[in-house]
Amino acid sequence: MTGIALPAPDPAILARRDEIIAGLKALVPGEGVITSEEERRAFETDALTAYRRMPLAVVLPSTTEQTAAVLAFLGREGVPVIPRGAGTSLAGGALPQEDAVVLGVAKMSKVLDVDLANRTVRVQTGVTNLGVSAAIAHEGFFYAPDPSSQLACTIAGNIAMNSGGAHCLKYGVTTNNLLGVTFVTLKGEVIEIGGDALDAPGLDMLGLICGSEGQFGVVTEATLRILPMAEGARPILFGFASPETAGACVAAVLGAGIVPVAIEYMDKLAIDICEDFAKAGYPRDVGAMLIVEVEGSADEIDEQLARIGAIAGDHGATYARQARTPAEAAAIWKGRKSAFGAMGRVSDYICMDGTIPTGTLPQVLTRITEICDNAGLKVANIFHAGDGNLHPLVLYDMNDPVSLAKAEKAGEDILLACVEVGGCLTGEHGVGIEKRDLMTAQFTRIELEQQMRVKSAFDPNWLLNPAKVFPLDDRLPKVAA
Amino acid sequence: MTGIALPAPDPAILARRDEIIAGLKALVPGEGVITSEEERRAFETDALTAYRRMPLAVVLPSTTEQTAAVLAFLGREGVPVIPRGAGTSLAGGALPQEDAVVLGVAKMSKVLDVDLANRTVRVQTGVTNLGVSAAIAHEGFFYAPDPSSQLACTIAGNIAMNSGGAHCLKYGVTTNNLLGVTFVTLKGEVIEIGGDALDAPGLDMLGLICGSEGQFGVVTEATLRILPMAEGARPILFGFASPETAGACVAAVLGAGIVPVAIEYMDKLAIDICEDFAKAGYPRDVGAMLIVEVEGSADEIDEQLARIGAIAGDHGATYARQARTPAEAAAIWKGRKSAFGAMGRVSDYICMDGTIPTGTLPQVLTRITEICDNAGLKVANIFHAGDGNLHPLVLYDMNDPVSLAKAEKAGEDILLACVEVGGCLTGEHGVGIEKRDLMTAQFTRIELEQQMRVKSAFDPNWLLNPAKVFPLDDRLPKVAA
Repeated sequence: MTGIALPAPDPAILARRDEIIAGLKALVPGEGVITSEEERRAFETDALTAYRRMPLAVVLPSTTEQTAAVLAFLGREGVPVIPRGAGTSLAGGALPQEDAVVLGVAKMSKVLDVDLANRTVRVQTGVTNLGVSAAIAHEGFFYAPDPSSQLACTIAGNIAMNSGGAHCLKYGVTTNNLLGVTFVTLKGEVIEIGGDALDAPGLDMLGLICGSEGQFGVVTEATLRILPMAEGARPILFGFASPETAGACVAAVLGAGIVPVAIEYMDKLAIDICEDFAKAGYPRDVGAMLIVEVEGSADEIDEQLARIGAIAGDHGATYARQARTPAEAAAIWKGRKSAFGAMGRVSDYICMDGTIPTGTLPQVLTRITEICDNAGLKVANIFHAGDGNLHPLVLYDMNDPVSLAKAEKAGEDILLACVEVGGCLTGEHGVGIEKRDLMTAQFTRIELEQQMRVKSAFDPNWLLNPAKVFPLDDRLPKVAA
Repeated sequence: MTGIALPAPDPAILARRDEIIAGLKALVPGEGVITSEEERRAFETDALTAYRRMPLAVVLPSTTEQTAAVLAFLGREGVPVIPRGAGTSLAGGALPQEDAVVLGVAKMSKVLDVDLANRTVRVQTGVTNLGVSAAIAHEGFFYAPDPSSQLACTIAGNIAMNSGGAHCLKYGVTTNNLLGVTFVTLKGEVIEIGGDALDAPGLDMLGLICGSEGQFGVVTEATLRILPMAEGARPILFGFASPETAGACVAAVLGAGIVPVAIEYMDKLAIDICEDFAKAGYPRDVGAMLIVEVEGSADEIDEQLARIGAIAGDHGATYARQARTPAEAAAIWKGRKSAFGAMGRVSDYICMDGTIPTGTLPQVLTRITEICDNAGLKVANIFHAGDGNLHPLVLYDMNDPVSLAKAEKAGEDILLACVEVGGCLTGEHGVGIEKRDLMTAQFTRIELEQQMRVKSAFDPNWLLNPAKVFPLDDRLPKVAA
């Protein structure tokens, strides 16, 4: 049904389904084990909806101890495990397989502690991204990484994918805002990694865990760095005749040493679709648009926007409008953050996620247009331009396998173009299954083997999220546990 | 001679010394192999000068290829390797052993590329920390992590120890400013990790390498994030009657949501010794002092300093003086950055390096005083208070083994007190040999075993910096290569 190979389920595990479910029910009481076909269907895909697999069962532990008991049981029984946050992954990172148990963190969603003096919060990882900021907003603090899916996505998923968002240009991605985790291994061991302080002794296993896509274990609690809200913030919209001039403007702003909170790029197609949906007040008669947000006191904002406005003028901006009120600012951001949903109402699409050195933005934009033109596909470009994190949305028709195959090939070519200019296959969505087979374009065999040796140091039998991240061929041999 | 056990050298390796040196000379021509006793003496210790061991030989490769050939040769021959930057490590991270070859990066010290549009520089890792900022200062950029030893210490050492500095409160430590490395394994494999962009696909091996203390391989090149200099910056001095009131002021400033660039703490003894040496204009009649630096436009600086001044007043500050000129600002920082050297002229000392949640600063300061009073030792407290990174200097007499033993015990108790309040054994100096045997206080056996499994994934025979980081007892068995 789709182009990316998934392994066939192990019949020996399928045959033991009843026994595995009984084992899970003994460890997690009540509604924590989901077995009916109807209820399992809610877990058969994530936001990469072209791929679906019904899991063997779903288990939702309520505590770290239950999580440890479940992982130890499944590890002992040799059953694959698919860790899951809210299932908003765009790269298939939470896609189940028929012989695997989905382990979800949804029932662990409390904010455990707020410590303003240390600027930290401690949470269970089933809490949503926005739930963290909501718990501290009244104190004037916020949690910086802000994926577009922040209303739904969990901190567990953010940690697994090292998620970013529109504002990570200034504040960094998840790994820059994560201080510590409670981490459960497949042996059922509970490990505290990191802590409240800036740095921890020994190996930086925290960075290793962050972005490991459920390959190493399950994070049940996390200590997050929180930041004081700025005095104020204001977005400005710029319109340009072409994608290339907008891209050159981004490179010029950053080259001038200015660090806005966010620089978001949208092309003509993206503008039209978002404006239809969100009535954000975007200009219709431009070839590309930038949303640039700066923060500080009113004077600082004025001064920064004046400098940025001058640079935009030098780069041929044909439209400029500052948000004059908080409502206007909110409307501008609502348009951007609803982009993926708005696009989904109009067409099926695959959302790519590559990063590039920001200076190469104009040439990569030209290349994306070429690739999609040649494939006869429409592409809408929406991305975090300030930090070079591209999100081209390649439109296709889900009912037409030829169309999907073309879109997947175009997406692949776009990511390879990112790698060619010194960038990466993924910014914030992860490798998942989507980019698994492209990893050989990014890494040498030697590099992949070293990564796999580290994976084996956590999961010697490759039971955790096994179809993902590493190409299926040439994997390291499994090691007896 | 000192309290920390070092393994006895392997006589089989000592017996093969001539053969090993001949092998090195075949790979690194000219002056790149150091064998005479006189020249080797320059490498027998680092800044933890109480410990000394003469290495078997020293090799200084000039290229990544030579580094790869040397590591492959030593790995094949089963000879321990001690990677070394400038040897400024304060925790014995670069301490040699008699049966090991020191591999120094001193001959790889070029700045390879400056890319202002992408805000990155590419360097060979033998370049000094200050050499990086010096190469870009004329463009208005700088490299943020600034260890006190920045004039001498190398980027290789900064990466190995994940170094911080006075200004990391706002800008983060090395791991937050490192984008990519060229990394050479003990097999002689050359691996590119990370890149120019904000995030890289696959495992975050970059974070894992950063701070791994030469346990995994050797980093020969690095891509560093650089930042635009602020419009201006200004330090202010505050004096307090007691360490505890100064500590409470730090917690209050941070709790109010203010993020200065730096908050440095010095107690009475530290103030006197630094003032004698550097004539920095510090107040003599206070019990503790804070240096708080803020940055921005002149107006922003005035506004931030007014808020901070009000908080300091509420916490009983008895002295306050802003730097009025760049020369006054430079004098204030010169006093702080020369602290370790100034102390060394007056007394032998061991410099501890723990981190704590900033809110616990007052109670930990009280506990440090108690510990040293009970041991009959003087202690000077100098540290990065803003991010909770403590540097108590415990004074002792190097010619008196009893005095050293007492100082080591007091240092140990101070670090355990940091762990007790939820902090860490090390902030930016690393574990090295100094804190190796305390790791069991920070980590459970399960946690240490998981770290050791990761170490073995890079170095199955434990040849890289083998006496360091992990307690000598209970290590994982070596694996056949």
